[in-house]
Amino acid sequence: MKIDINADLGESFGQYTLGDDEKLMSVITSANVACGYHAGDYRTIPQSIKLAKAANVAIGAHPGYPDLLGFGRRNMDIPAEEVYQLVVYQVGAVRAFCMVEGVPLHHVKPHGALYNEAAKNRNLALAIAQAVKDVDPRLVLYGLANSQLIEAAKQLDLAYAPEVFADRTYTEEGLLTSRQYDGAVITSLESIKKQVSELVFEGVVTTATNKKIPMQADTLCFHGDGQSAYHHAKVIRDMLEADRVNVQAINY
Amino acid sequence: MKIDINADLGESFGQYTLGDDEKLMSVITSANVACGYHAGDYRTIPQSIKLAKAANVAIGAHPGYPDLLGFGRRNMDIPAEEVYQLVVYQVGAVRAFCMVEGVPLHHVKPHGALYNEAAKNRNLALAIAQAVKDVDPRLVLYGLANSQLIEAAKQLDLAYAPEVFADRTYTEEGLLTSRQYDGAVITSLESIKKQVSELVFEGVVTTATNKKIPMQADTLCFHGDGQSAYHHAKVIRDMLEADRVNVQAINY
Amino acid sequence: MKIDINADLGESFGQYTLGDDEKLMSVITSANVACGYHAGDYRTIPQSIKLAKAANVAIGAHPGYPDLLGFGRRNMDIPAEEVYQLVVYQVGAVRAFCMVEGVPLHHVKPHGALYNEAAKNRNLALAIAQAVKDVDPRLVLYGLANSQLIEAAKQLDLAYAPEVFADRTYTEEGLLTSRQYDGAVITSLESIKKQVSELVFEGVVTTATNKKIPMQADTLCFHGDGQSAYHHAKVIRDMLEADRVNVQAINY
Amino acid sequence: MKIDINADLGESFGQYTLGDDEKLMSVITSANVACGYHAGDYRTIPQSIKLAKAANVAIGAHPGYPDLLGFGRRNMDIPAEEVYQLVVYQVGAVRAFCMVEGVPLHHVKPHGALYNEAAKNRNLALAIAQAVKDVDPRLVLYGLANSQLIEAAKQLDLAYAPEVFADRTYTEEGLLTSRQYDGAVITSLESIKKQVSELVFEGVVTTATNKKIPMQADTLCFHGDGQSAYHHAKVIRDMLEADRVNVQAINY
Repeated sequence: MKIDINADLGESFGQYTLGDDEKLMSVITSANVACGYHAGDYRTIPQSIKLAKAANVAIGAHPGYPDLLGFGRRNMDIPAEEVYQLVVYQVGAVRAFCMVEGVPLHHVKPHGALYNEAAKNRNLALAIAQAVKDVDPRLVLYGLANSQLIEAAKQLDLAYAPEVFADRTYTEEGLLTSRQYDGAVITSLESIKKQVSELVFEGVVTTATNKKIPMQADTLCFHGDGQSAYHHAKVIRDMLEADRVNVQAINY
Repeated sequence: MKIDINADLGESFGQYTLGDDEKLMSVITSANVACGYHAGDYRTIPQSIKLAKAANVAIGAHPGYPDLLGFGRRNMDIPAEEVYQLVVYQVGAVRAFCMVEGVPLHHVKPHGALYNEAAKNRNLALAIAQAVKDVDPRLVLYGLANSQLIEAAKQLDLAYAPEVFADRTYTEEGLLTSRQYDGAVITSLESIKKQVSELVFEGVVTTATNKKIPMQADTLCFHGDGQSAYHHAKVIRDMLEADRVNVQAINY
Repeated sequence: MKIDINADLGESFGQYTLGDDEKLMSVITSANVACGYHAGDYRTIPQSIKLAKAANVAIGAHPGYPDLLGFGRRNMDIPAEEVYQLVVYQVGAVRAFCMVEGVPLHHVKPHGALYNEAAKNRNLALAIAQAVKDVDPRLVLYGLANSQLIEAAKQLDLAYAPEVFADRTYTEEGLLTSRQYDGAVITSLESIKKQVSELVFEGVVTTATNKKIPMQADTLCFHGDGQSAYHHAKVIRDMLEADRVNVQAINY
Repeated sequence: MKIDINADLGESFGQYTLGDDEKLMSVITSANVACGYHAGDYRTIPQSIKLAKAANVAIGAHPGYPDLLGFGRRNMDIPAEEVYQLVVYQVGAVRAFCMVEGVPLHHVKPHGALYNEAAKNRNLALAIAQAVKDVDPRLVLYGLANSQLIEAAKQLDLAYAPEVFADRTYTEEGLLTSRQYDGAVITSLESIKKQVSELVFEGVVTTATNKKIPMQADTLCFHGDGQSAYHHAKVIRDMLEADRVNVQAINY
């Protein structure tokens, strides 16, 4: 039994501080580092990479739309060909910092609106997967379980990690319940623990409609800028390790 | 006898077009590609790289200060440690596009105010040279002849190319006459040709004060956004090739 | 008989030049000045205002989405409440330059994707109209004829100017034929002249489906960054003035 | 006896939060609102203005250099003519939000590197003062006591408010001791209270060299993003009001 725990970080910008990277590094096994488009800058990237290196956490690039004001959470009408280019740009920048620190860049996970669009849109998903593969074919693509992004990675023979959320409910199609609906977010720590246990030990998830469906979960995401990210990740990791689950990054 | 001819390009941004990359590629042997900070974006970089690849022109990254509004020509009070980081970021981004196109990144040349500051300031020069070396020790650093940037490359055992300007006059210290003075810029094509001949065949330059001083000139720069860049470069290249000079990039 | 001729301008940015404001000023009667979000900056705004003042052209603010890279042409998922704020910001900035030049700000016309969205979306249209009215209730709102933007101006008792395009065809609903279809753009100068004549003298337009429908046309737009903007505007203005039409801004 | 207490605020940006505007409003009498160049955006400006209006705090624009990454604290080589324009732009934007809220814009105080440069450089100071006057001649210019900015306001017959810092020591010329020297910053609350008492009741300050020199202090600044800004301002305001000093904005 094994699973990865990832978080988005490196999201500070200039004078602005967001999240607590140092604390998060002690409980996660994969760090998704913002690349300077939706968040992060050339000073935060090496800082996060150094912290990850010191904590033996696998380093990923976390590219997003070029929208600092909207934190990459607003959908932008950017064609797939251009998405390929903005992923190459951002992954290349983060990868260079890994090189100068002497650590490998391990994975790529798209951010925010780019992540959500790529979950649904095969062309966008293929553009992202191709960009990742072209920069370095050994990189692992993290994407929403059962999404087009995972399908694109399979199609291009790229390593991939289906991502699940401990604190979100799922539809019968194995996708996230939209935040527009009540019950999309799980707040009770007991329910979060129960969902993680089912995912890790049984390979299933209980949907919002109360059915058990199979679910491949290679990596668990905890939101890096949330107040409770560290706390939840710590509780889950402790629970998993007490149950002798190997908490570690994929192919790492 | 050999010399390189370089130009700054890839300086368009979004809807804004600057320069004529395609035309320039036919007369230069090194292209310095803007990296998205002072000019250029994730769409222009691959465009310029594809053009350079097709024309067998050596590709360089051309990092600048993060100042699109000022085109990187305004000095910014950024400490050396941070300059190291902004060079890594920009070189990494351009290098990734080279990788996906299957061509090597060949050199780095700082832009505008960063170039000028690094010519005078040893710490800044060392920060840039170290960033270049850490990203890829085979890269060639282009910098103003007789400047701190060239000294920094020597100190770090990095390959370097002293750059001269066909259309600028020089002081007795072998540096550029400031543009604040009359006679800083050479406009007569005959004088430009004479200066290049002296540089290439005799290894000297005649200063604004009319002395001949030794000058190592590995690469000649023609300004990419100037109206006459293409025309001057063409005339000079034709002259040099008629005189059996090898016009080619350094270590290429 | 009277009509206004407007153009979008002030679209240069930093080192980047776009369009030829000076030339356009000689043939238009309303200038829509970019406000620094999708194009333009604090140097181009006063430049355009000075040119308009000298040519006795009515000055308008031309606010857009905060997307310089996409030139404000990409739709962004920004709620109406926030659109209100970004219009106040941009109109306020341009209005201050009018004040220091001692000329009135005369109108507001949204740009690009903001213009197109506001044509269809009543809430967005109302947010824009309310922002314009709150900054200065004497301002005229320019918007696509028969669009929600014009309806919003009516609802808020704001002066308005329905805008038509000399070089675009119309649907039977009186809206623009989408550029996705052939025949959306009129290229023949004869057809352009015929469409303008019908609009001005008969108050009708012949649709792409060859029906005549009524159309209120207070202002004619010529695209400021197009190659032929000046040429078309000149030909049309000459034609109209030869036919004794008063070519002048609304309420000016 | 009267004095104003001001603070810089409205410095959040997009997803990034900085400072606690709401808390500060309860202890200050003048609010300097960031204008979207070095900090702030079109959403934070109206938020801060609404808070100031509710607390009956005088509202000022706080323009800075166009450098979000450096928070306007890095000097930029921008000529006076252009500084005039960037002040008009930013003041105009904030003033429009005041208009839609039905409150007057009361003052302007430059930020960071722009403030410091304008304290020393008369041309820059005059450009700023002229911009303020041209936008609205009733505005009050806040600037460092004894600085070129105050001189410029006098020269242009603009209302002005010399600003002092409760927690900084002064030279015999009446200027701030540079932060490069020990003793530039006063940390003891007792010393801060003593300095404010001397300023308000005696119109003097004791220099770092222990001389008493005259000092006109119309407004006291507490740094909006510091941890202790609220606490210090509260203690000082309580002390002053206990001593029957009118704590209120200038000409308000």
